[in-house]
Amino acid sequence: MSRLELLAVTFADEVAQGMDLAGRILEAVSLADGDVVVVTQKIVSKAEGRVVELAEEDEEGFRALVHAESRRVLRRRGSLAITETHHGFICANAGIDRSNTAPDTVVLLPRDPDASARRLRVALERATGHRLGVVITDTFGRTFRNGVTDVAIGCAGVRSILDLRGTPDHTGRTLAATEICIADEIAAAADLVKTKDGRTPVVVVRGLRRELLGEGSVKGEVVRDYSRDLFR
Amino acid sequence: MSRLELLAVTFADEVAQGMDLAGRILEAVSLADGDVVVVTQKIVSKAEGRVVELAEEDEEGFRALVHAESRRVLRRRGSLAITETHHGFICANAGIDRSNTAPDTVVLLPRDPDASARRLRVALERATGHRLGVVITDTFGRTFRNGVTDVAIGCAGVRSILDLRGTPDHTGRTLAATEICIADEIAAAADLVKTKDGRTPVVVVRGLRRELLGEGSVKGEVVRDYSRDLFR
Repeated sequence: MSRLELLAVTFADEVAQGMDLAGRILEAVSLADGDVVVVTQKIVSKAEGRVVELAEEDEEGFRALVHAESRRVLRRRGSLAITETHHGFICANAGIDRSNTAPDTVVLLPRDPDASARRLRVALERATGHRLGVVITDTFGRTFRNGVTDVAIGCAGVRSILDLRGTPDHTGRTLAATEICIADEIAAAADLVKTKDGRTPVVVVRGLRRELLGEGSVKGEVVRDYSRDLFR
Repeated sequence: MSRLELLAVTFADEVAQGMDLAGRILEAVSLADGDVVVVTQKIVSKAEGRVVELAEEDEEGFRALVHAESRRVLRRRGSLAITETHHGFICANAGIDRSNTAPDTVVLLPRDPDASARRLRVALERATGHRLGVVITDTFGRTFRNGVTDVAIGCAGVRSILDLRGTPDHTGRTLAATEICIADEIAAAADLVKTKDGRTPVVVVRGLRRELLGEGSVKGEVVRDYSRDLFR
C-alpha cells in the first residue's frame, strides 16, 4: 500500500530579512531522503526582504504597488484587482499580502520563486546530504470554483508537471492528455495540515513516489501565457 | 506537530454496475474514526451504471454525448470541448472519460456526486460505527495554469469550504477573504499517492483536523455559476 505523510512544522518566531531559512527549517524538523519541503511564500519573501512599508489605510499606495508588481490588470471588482504578475501568475492584487505581516507593511511575492526554491534546496541538501525537493506556495483563487487553494509558485527537485501522455492505462489503451501538475497538488496537500495563524509556514511531504521527484519549474512549465488561455 | 497520512487503496478487480462500493472499500482497508475516503469518480460512475456503449472511433456519437451531458459548450479546440455540465462543472468533454474503461464504452459523471458521496458515507459509517467523510474526485484542467489536478465533484462529511473570514491572524488583524476549498485540497492531495493505471481508485486521508470535518457540498458551495465568474 502506497503511503504519504505530511508533517506541519511550527516556527516559534518571525522570519526576518536575511534569515537563514534552511537553518531555521533544520532546527525545527529532521529531514529524510526524498522529502519535499513545502514553504509558504510569505516567509521566503520576508527572508528575501520583499517587504514594503505601507500604511494600513493607504489604499492608493496599495493600488500603485499592485500595478508596479503586475504586467496588466485583468479584472477589477471593488478593491480587488485580478492581475497578471511579472512572473505570469494570475492572482488577486499581484499576490501582495497584508495579513500575518508587521503593522503597516505588506509582503510582495519573491522576484523569482523557482530560483528561491533552488537556493533553498541546495542549502538543505548540503546540510543534510539528502536528495530533497522544495515547493514554494501561495494561496490563489481560481475561475469557476469558489474558495481558494494553495498552489506552487516555485519549485526545485520536484516535477512541476508529470507527463503521462502515451502511458498505457490498465486496459492497455493510451492515456490521452494527462499532464498532472504535481507541484500544485503538493501545495494543496500541504495546506491541509497548516494552521491559518501563520505559525506553520513549512510542511514536509514524506514518501512521494520517486517518479514525482526530478527537475521542475513553475515558471517554465506551469504558467500558461494569458494570451494563450482559452478563457481571458 | 500536526500530521496527516494518505493511504492508497488497491482494488484487485473491476468495479461493475450495482457493486457494493462500501463493502469493497472495507474489504481493502481498515478505516479509523475521522478518516476521509477519497474515491475516484470513475468507480462511482461504474457502480451507478453511468456507462454508455460507444465505438472507439465514433467521434460524432461522442460529440452528441458531450452535448447531452452539458448545459452549454464554452470553448472548443479541435476535438476538445470545454463545457458546463448539468452539475455546473466546467471541464473537458463534460467529464466523459474514455480511458480505464471497457472497450467501446465511455463513463459519464455521476448524476449527483454529492448524493453519491452521502450514500457512500452512510454505508461506510453504518458498517464501521466511525464518523467518516467521503470526497469524490475527478481530474480537471484549469485556466491560466498548465496541467490537470484532481478536484472534488462531490463530498459528504467534509467541509467543502472552510470560511476563515473574521478569524484573527497571528498579529491580531482579521484575515480577509479566506475561504479555503478543503474538498479540492483533499482531492489534490489524494492524487499524489494514486497510480495512473486506475488500480488505486481509493485513498484514505487520516488525521485531518476536526474543524475540516463537517457538512459540505461541492454543488452547493464550490460550484460558481459561470455567468457570475469574472472570466468567461
